[in-house]
Order: sequence, then structure tokens, then C-alpha cells
Amino acid sequence: MRFQVRTTQREELVEITHEVARLVAQSGVTDGAVLIFSPHTTAAITINENADPDVRHDLVDGLARVAPRDARWRHVEGNSDGHVKSSLVGASLLVPVESGRMQLGTWQAIYFAEFDGPRSRSVDVTMLPGVR
Amino acid sequence: MRFQVRTTQREELVEITHEVARLVAQSGVTDGAVLIFSPHTTAAITINENADPDVRHDLVDGLARVAPRDARWRHVEGNSDGHVKSSLVGASLLVPVESGRMQLGTWQAIYFAEFDGPRSRSVDVTMLPGVR
Amino acid sequence: MRFQVRTTQREELVEITHEVARLVAQSGVTDGAVLIFSPHTTAAITINENADPDVRHDLVDGLARVAPRDARWRHVEGNSDGHVKSSLVGASLLVPVESGRMQLGTWQAIYFAEFDGPRSRSVDVTMLPGVR
Repeated sequence: MRFQVRTTQREELVEITHEVARLVAQSGVTDGAVLIFSPHTTAAITINENADPDVRHDLVDGLARVAPRDARWRHVEGNSDGHVKSSLVGASLLVPVESGRMQLGTWQAIYFAEFDGPRSRSVDVTMLPGVR
Repeated sequence: MRFQVRTTQREELVEITHEVARLVAQSGVTDGAVLIFSPHTTAAITINENADPDVRHDLVDGLARVAPRDARWRHVEGNSDGHVKSSLVGASLLVPVESGRMQLGTWQAIYFAEFDGPRSRSVDVTMLPGVR
Repeated sequence: MRFQVRTTQREELVEITHEVARLVAQSGVTDGAVLIFSPHTTAAITINENADPDVRHDLVDGLARVAPRDARWRHVEGNSDGHVKSSLVGASLLVPVESGRMQLGTWQAIYFAEFDGPRSRSVDVTMLPGVR
């Protein structure tokens, strides 16, 4: 299963919790986990706070400090910072599912993390049946 | 399946290998993988060395260098460093299981990583049957 | 399932996409995900670009900036930087599988990330059947 995300900035977190929840419900799998996967090398999937938008801002800022855009890189496309962030945050995320619902904590939301936008991006979703 | 972890410091690694191993054995699933998930936005699950406690200390220290507590953050709760570390280390971890036992390497242990404690925390465990 | 990787430098990314693809095909599982796991505490598994070798170089360099080898560490073995990188990049990676093939993006390859080589290393592979 796949859906599209359109990002609007170079670096940004786009919430995708509802799109994933809809595919989980459609799948008919009630217990196990859902795999959310980014097929891109300058993006990632992560979980973080859903309440204060400043947390999203701080996360983008904090990652820019970890892998600065203007460090001395070899790759000529100017997006090496995005490649490093992609490996640090990770292309794949698993969330447990019970009775057809993701078992996210109260403050958790799922984000598509864009590190070289704006672009049109894909998110890949797989249900893995399991025992809870 | 869930269990509780009580952390005693702001930043700390608490070993949870034995609690996870017990739930794996109870589940009756012999082959596949176990998903260990943190339902918190200022914590994470990770694997690292089980032998020298200095490695745990260096890991806490190394992450504090990556996301310093006193950097200029927007979020007013003073735990933005913990949110960044949570996304970097990751809320979900998968460990392969064979014949009812986790296939950890000789030096590997599973840790609950606390980045904004001390708190009472939950760890969520799901068994995913698979082919080894 | 397991295979061996021989690394030749202290810090290096070794592509393992083809070894993993072969095991996926052999497993007979057509839909779900493949778990690639490193049983080592100074190594990791990651996805990044398969085209320009400079990206691999920048990734090794970027991680060395995140966890410098010569920072003040407690652990006496001199590989604390590798332990930190292992927790940041992660020991486990999941890639979706459909019709017996990994659903990697056009530019994605799977890498064994060595942070304390050269060594002989193992990679552990598990198939998790699922619904796509």
C-alpha cells in the first residue's frame, strides 16, 4: 500500500498519522504491527510529539545542528546533510497494532521527515500480523 | 504485552533484556522477531554493549553532545534535547527470534533510553512470526 | 539466515543489497518485510544512495562529526564513537517485500555500516510475512 506526500519546504515534518491509520483499518489485520517505509534517500519516517508545533521546529533545527547543510561535503548535489539525517532518523518505522488500532502513546504522532524538499514523496505501508 | 520501567535520572539507559526475553518465551512464538516499542516522545529503545558500564555512560554523554540540553530551543518545556534524541535513537526496535530465543550478539543488551526522567515509563512488546 | 561481511577499514559502508535479495528470494515468502539485523555493538544497518560513492564517504564523515573518535570518552577500548554511532544508525532495518522482491526506491541500497573495523562481521536476516 502506498500514499503520496507533497512537501513544501527543504526541511520539514509532515504528519501522516491519519493516512497510516486509515490503511491499517482497511487491511483487515487486527493484531501485529504496521511498517511505515520511506523509499527515498533524503527523507525518513519518525515519531514525535503531536501537541506543540515548536517540538517539530526544534527537531528540524536540532537535526540541522547534527548535520549542517554547509559542512564540507564531497557529494556535489548539495544535499549530503539530508543523506546523513536520513540514515540517522531511519527509513523504516514499526508501530504496534491491536484490535485494528495503532498503539501510539498519548503524545505520539507519525511524521514524514523531508530533508531535501520541496518534493512529491511516497510512503510505503505493510501490515505484519503478530501476537500481542 | 507491556511492562513498566521506573527511571531514576534525567538521562539514563535501563537494561530491559530479561523482561523482553520473558515475554518472548511466554508468547509461544518460536521463530520470527520481537518488536520493542516506546510509547513516549522523550525516550527510545536501543541495543548496545552489556559488559562495560562505561559504554552506557559514553552513550548518554555522546547523545548529550549531539543534542545539548542548553541549545537555543523554542519548546518551553526544556526537554527539546530529549525529543531530538528520541527521533535519532528511535521508538521501535526489532530483534530476531529463533527457537523461542532472541538472537542477540554476545555483547548486545536491550536498553530503555530515558531522555527526560526520572519517570514511570511503559515498554510495549509484540511478537511477529517469521521465517528464519 | 546469516551471511558474513569482511570489512577492510575502521569506518566504512559495505553494500549488502544483493546478499539480502538472494535470501529473500530463497525464503519463499512473497509478501511482507525482511528484517536485516546486526548482532554487533559497533556496527549498524542502514539504507542510503546507491549511485554516487561520495554519498557513502559523506555519510562516514558526517557520522564522525556527530561522534568524534577523539572526544573525551570513559570506555578504554577507544571505540566509544562506534558504540554511539551504532545506537544512532540502528542495529535493525526493515524493508518491505512484494512478489518476492524488496520494494527499495530507485536510489536506495542496503549497507552494513562498520564503525570499528576492519573485522569479520555477521548479518542476520529474517522474513516476516505480511499484507501489502
